[in-house]
Amino acid sequence: MTLIFTDREVAAALDASATVAAMRDALLAAHAGRLVAPPRAAAPLDGGRMVLTAGHLTGEWYGFRSYDTFGLPESEQLVVLHDGRTGAVRAVAVGEELGSRRTGGLGGVAVDALARPDAVTLGVIGSGRQAWTQVWAAAAVRPLREVTVHSRSAARREAFAARVRAELGVSARAVDSPRAAVRDRDVVVLATTSTTPVLDATDLAPGTHVNAVGFKQADRHEFGCDLLDRADLLVTDSPAQAGAYSPPMLAAVEPYAGRLRDLGAVLAGAVPGRTGADQVSVFCSTGLAGTEVFLLDRLVRVGAAAV
Amino acid sequence: MTLIFTDREVAAALDASATVAAMRDALLAAHAGRLVAPPRAAAPLDGGRMVLTAGHLTGEWYGFRSYDTFGLPESEQLVVLHDGRTGAVRAVAVGEELGSRRTGGLGGVAVDALARPDAVTLGVIGSGRQAWTQVWAAAAVRPLREVTVHSRSAARREAFAARVRAELGVSARAVDSPRAAVRDRDVVVLATTSTTPVLDATDLAPGTHVNAVGFKQADRHEFGCDLLDRADLLVTDSPAQAGAYSPPMLAAVEPYAGRLRDLGAVLAGAVPGRTGADQVSVFCSTGLAGTEVFLLDRLVRVGAAAV
Repeated sequence: MTLIFTDREVAAALDASATVAAMRDALLAAHAGRLVAPPRAAAPLDGGRMVLTAGHLTGEWYGFRSYDTFGLPESEQLVVLHDGRTGAVRAVAVGEELGSRRTGGLGGVAVDALARPDAVTLGVIGSGRQAWTQVWAAAAVRPLREVTVHSRSAARREAFAARVRAELGVSARAVDSPRAAVRDRDVVVLATTSTTPVLDATDLAPGTHVNAVGFKQADRHEFGCDLLDRADLLVTDSPAQAGAYSPPMLAAVEPYAGRLRDLGAVLAGAVPGRTGADQVSVFCSTGLAGTEVFLLDRLVRVGAAAV
Repeated sequence: MTLIFTDREVAAALDASATVAAMRDALLAAHAGRLVAPPRAAAPLDGGRMVLTAGHLTGEWYGFRSYDTFGLPESEQLVVLHDGRTGAVRAVAVGEELGSRRTGGLGGVAVDALARPDAVTLGVIGSGRQAWTQVWAAAAVRPLREVTVHSRSAARREAFAARVRAELGVSARAVDSPRAAVRDRDVVVLATTSTTPVLDATDLAPGTHVNAVGFKQADRHEFGCDLLDRADLLVTDSPAQAGAYSPPMLAAVEPYAGRLRDLGAVLAGAVPGRTGADQVSVFCSTGLAGTEVFLLDRLVRVGAAAV
């Protein structure tokens, strides 16, 4: 019997703390070699690609997330969990929530590991689904006192600020420039669909931690090399995926590649994280493969299926 | 709302005639360039691969089948149908029936197009799920009078023969050698898991048509080059996939590649099929990408969903 999860069930069952905890476990499992997380595979279709990002928790389960790049208005993804002993499909999630909560959870782990312990302010550029789950997860790992948000649409950034106040109980302001959003912030989130830089690294205060969720490849990027040059600490959740993009991630080519650290290794204490309150740290989120399946396995374990 | 299909619903809704008709339409759509069917994409996992075979019927839908190569006892596949205008997931099939009926349906199209019009006897080597759907589909395109079956297990070949009699109403005998199964047959099906040849091409009568469903790559193959040398006509459902295997299909390398014809092109009349009653024809089945999604779309259109 296959369990089916819709966005509604995922949203009801996965709070931010549980999601961040699951993603921490996943990153540690990947670092330990238990979670096998290869770069994505894709099949080219007319006008877009069908993409498969697979994972395997040795001895327990394997599965994948599928998504496409057609850019259609109601595009849905699948996450599929196979029993690792029998091969049967234990669960399928259809929609967007699991994938975006997963990405938020990874961002929450990064904030927890890399932002200053006393971080309480957050600035976000972008007001979409990915921006939301980043703030949602950050609020679970730091006692946020104020969120500033900028996006191109005044209506959407006001709505985002209202949602932060209503759902997270955190003071929030919509602001009319990227600079106003990120200035003097302890944590900054970039979660736009922009293919050109939306941020000037000189606007960041010393000690800021940045989660970068949008485009970050050589040919399109929501931040420029000025941010990588400014950073004392460059971290990603999947060095393998970072180098496997075509073209690769900006931070995965020289002169940055040698400095790019694995978040799982930082969590495990194998490489250092932040070592000073004035350091600027940057987390380049790729969405480690297998983490969506990891999260679906958690949902199944807590008995959250509706069907 | 996503429709979910189990093996039971698929089996109840897809008879052999409808399946063969759908696969004929799919092959013609691929030949016309409307069905985009790229070679498979795969992500390597520990001990196996997660494979995605995708398709796109321009302007109507896109989707994929996923399967793995772990070889687990209850391994299940997924077939996913996305609405081509919205991106929403319209239907998901979980199990084995859709994929194996699809492969059977492609085999039925090949028999219909390539076997002699007066073919009435069929010999099959193999007694598994793939062997069954080949015979099931062949019986829908030719008025079979007798089926002979061989596989290594006497119990399984006897059960297979009994199933042919019971479900297809066709006389059937289990025989104790591959040679006895294929000798003097109008149609031969190879559907084994063997990695070495199970057939001696000299055992085939002139005029035989062969459907080959199992391994057929350079490094493992259920038939040898003697069959390809004997064949007057070599046909596949996907020349692109035939060449994309690693290593490629035996029939997709020289001296055979130049002779390998596309079944869709034969159906469309763009290249000739059988031109004489004594010719030996061989269909090398690859499982054209997108055909599973094509079949799932048919299921949705006839309203066969149970959930």
